[in-house]
Amino acid sequence: MFKLSTLDWTTVVFWLKMAGMHQSELFTQIRREAPSDEMATNAELLIRAGFVHKELAGVYSYLPLGYRVLMKIANLVREEITHSLGAQEVLMSSLHPLENYQKTGRDKIDVLFHTELSSGGELVLGQSHEEIVVPLVKGFLTSYRDLPLGVFQIQTKFRNEKRAKSGLMRGREFLMKDLYSFHQNEADFDSYYDKVRAAYTRIFEAVGLGDTTYFTYASGGTFSDYSHEFQTLTEAGEDNILVCEKCHLAVNEEFTEKQTTCPGCEAPFANLEKRRALEVANIFPLKTKFSSAFSLTYRDEQGEEKLAIMGCYGLGISRLLGAIAEIHSDDKGLIWPEKVAPFKVHLLTFGEAKDPNVLERAEKLYDKLTTDGHEVLWDDREVSAGEKMAGADLIGLPYRIVISPKTLAESKVELKLRRESDVKLIPEDKLCNYLG
Amino acid sequence: MFKLSTLDWTTVVFWLKMAGMHQSELFTQIRREAPSDEMATNAELLIRAGFVHKELAGVYSYLPLGYRVLMKIANLVREEITHSLGAQEVLMSSLHPLENYQKTGRDKIDVLFHTELSSGGELVLGQSHEEIVVPLVKGFLTSYRDLPLGVFQIQTKFRNEKRAKSGLMRGREFLMKDLYSFHQNEADFDSYYDKVRAAYTRIFEAVGLGDTTYFTYASGGTFSDYSHEFQTLTEAGEDNILVCEKCHLAVNEEFTEKQTTCPGCEAPFANLEKRRALEVANIFPLKTKFSSAFSLTYRDEQGEEKLAIMGCYGLGISRLLGAIAEIHSDDKGLIWPEKVAPFKVHLLTFGEAKDPNVLERAEKLYDKLTTDGHEVLWDDREVSAGEKMAGADLIGLPYRIVISPKTLAESKVELKLRRESDVKLIPEDKLCNYLG
Repeated sequence: MFKLSTLDWTTVVFWLKMAGMHQSELFTQIRREAPSDEMATNAELLIRAGFVHKELAGVYSYLPLGYRVLMKIANLVREEITHSLGAQEVLMSSLHPLENYQKTGRDKIDVLFHTELSSGGELVLGQSHEEIVVPLVKGFLTSYRDLPLGVFQIQTKFRNEKRAKSGLMRGREFLMKDLYSFHQNEADFDSYYDKVRAAYTRIFEAVGLGDTTYFTYASGGTFSDYSHEFQTLTEAGEDNILVCEKCHLAVNEEFTEKQTTCPGCEAPFANLEKRRALEVANIFPLKTKFSSAFSLTYRDEQGEEKLAIMGCYGLGISRLLGAIAEIHSDDKGLIWPEKVAPFKVHLLTFGEAKDPNVLERAEKLYDKLTTDGHEVLWDDREVSAGEKMAGADLIGLPYRIVISPKTLAESKVELKLRRESDVKLIPEDKLCNYLG
Repeated sequence: MFKLSTLDWTTVVFWLKMAGMHQSELFTQIRREAPSDEMATNAELLIRAGFVHKELAGVYSYLPLGYRVLMKIANLVREEITHSLGAQEVLMSSLHPLENYQKTGRDKIDVLFHTELSSGGELVLGQSHEEIVVPLVKGFLTSYRDLPLGVFQIQTKFRNEKRAKSGLMRGREFLMKDLYSFHQNEADFDSYYDKVRAAYTRIFEAVGLGDTTYFTYASGGTFSDYSHEFQTLTEAGEDNILVCEKCHLAVNEEFTEKQTTCPGCEAPFANLEKRRALEVANIFPLKTKFSSAFSLTYRDEQGEEKLAIMGCYGLGISRLLGAIAEIHSDDKGLIWPEKVAPFKVHLLTFGEAKDPNVLERAEKLYDKLTTDGHEVLWDDREVSAGEKMAGADLIGLPYRIVISPKTLAESKVELKLRRESDVKLIPEDKLCNYLG
């Protein structure tokens, strides 16, 4: 179909080498307890399983397993935004001059972290990038031929929240994808907006939140009549939404003054169900709010200077990690959807000391699976079978394979899916039928 | 050789789709001038060519071309550190509690940016991560069996520099790879240290700085007798080093009180050449400076609690971008080494309006090259041949291919390497021999 260039080859080889890991080499370990001040289920599980480390409330470091999930979510989002929307990736700074915010009147918003240059000059940490992207694009935008334009980044954001108690779902420091679009007119903006909505829908399906995530009508804040959110059902969320199951749509409770029926079938609110939910993404018409603050104009076909119409589209990468952990888990631990799991297969070996064949078979299977490109975490630690099983449930990889003297006696391996309860004994050469 | 899993396949397809771009769609444009306050050659060229945007002195945003280079450097470094050293990748927070710095006595260092939680609590922005990684590792380290251990990240750092005048080569906000290693004893640390030295040497060779980068003996600051730097020769650097060409080694001028001859051949300083250079990386013995501050201990074979011996190893990712731009450039613009070039080939088309065959041939060649996995930027803008040629020289991709009515008349394409002056007319089907 195509040949691989040096670059692509390097990338492939890199991922393949990353396909396998011995758990004894992983520096993180499973913990019995999370910090006592950690209230959120998602953070408690992620800390106990060794995915994240809490630095302070709302601020986490990502450990090897957690970083792999974070990067998988980021790459899924990157691909969708790049290929469906043709948006161009950049990386904007975290240090922002305060004067940019004075121009838009956002210098007083209370979630800003403030700091100062030692040489003089007030700065804020980026909690959003309108004040940076608009002056940046202004340097390049001249004609209507340059529009529409989409610019996005996957970048750390900082919000000085008074309270941070939802774990990874509402951080003071978090990873976010933010996309900004620029248009000649409302009609062009509307069609781009619909494309982003479709791209977001595909992303939530890919990460296993398709069923529980609702396109939600919400208020537009100070500079728009409306906005739209993607709300994922969870008791740990901070919003209330009214859900129409028939249309798979919702209305944010705060918007029910303006929107009094389901926006799809027009069912009255009395017929809709009130649910607790978490905002995982939003899409927002900015109109000319920011382009007018910085005089971001283009020359139209008649040669007249016009303000660009803008939209912004946020999607929380680390928040999704938190939401997936919160929703895809049970009393035993995490249950990762396959596309974002840190590894696909958890290979457990029991009774290595009693039977040297266990190690030999496991090594061969580990080599075969990783060579075939399946990502395998091999629990080769010197701990009991019970501890390995409990650890596998907590870490939550999609497929658990056990090799033990018992399975060898039947010339088989044991396979269990994390999200199912039954355990199968199957011949090793039939494994590929189950792993997909 | 091996099959590709779903994950790897997605990654490959992603890179291949990224293999080609029409320059008319790139939102950045070439500029005649950089901002008047920009003094550094690297930043001036990178701004004019549309690779970066200056937010304030020492703070840059990366635009699509610049972001591609940044990610290529980051991936080269990531692969080397992961595969040669077996170090594990994490992503630590940028917000750090000030109290961690009070424990190490580094709370007064003047390059820290300070900020405050709205709920109370003093924070600093990470300029280095010893104060975070040591408490983090402490939560997992128990036995000598866990050592040696290497943990690294590629993360934004913040340094509150009084002056920032070297463009991307000394930023207030910059991307850095930092690696921390943990050991039982000095001998184990020494052998790890040597492996990092070898890995760094390979990285500088890969990014085209092998010849001009010297392993340099330097002072150890307040808590070590010595350290080592990798210094790249450039008049824009901020250090003076004494270079021994014979041994390809150097001594930092500030260290000449302790080291009075070439560390290789023991040639006296009078025989060495004094050169201006830029520190692109350092490797540093930390001994127990940080492990004692946080009581980072492990149980040794005799069951005794011992402090871990540490090393830290920095390598500037965005600084390398700046150094490569500074060094690999001429009066016409940038000259990217192939492994870090944003695209490999710059395809220029002239005279499309006069001859429709130009567009047709170019489309076929663009498809063929990208399908073969060569990364191609096609300058399909409606501008003059002269403007396209000047732009290609400024952007500095390794290979320039021209298709015009003139080349078509001879059934050939024109090929020029950015770092060579001669232009070849060659048959299209022989191109692959030249592109490697």
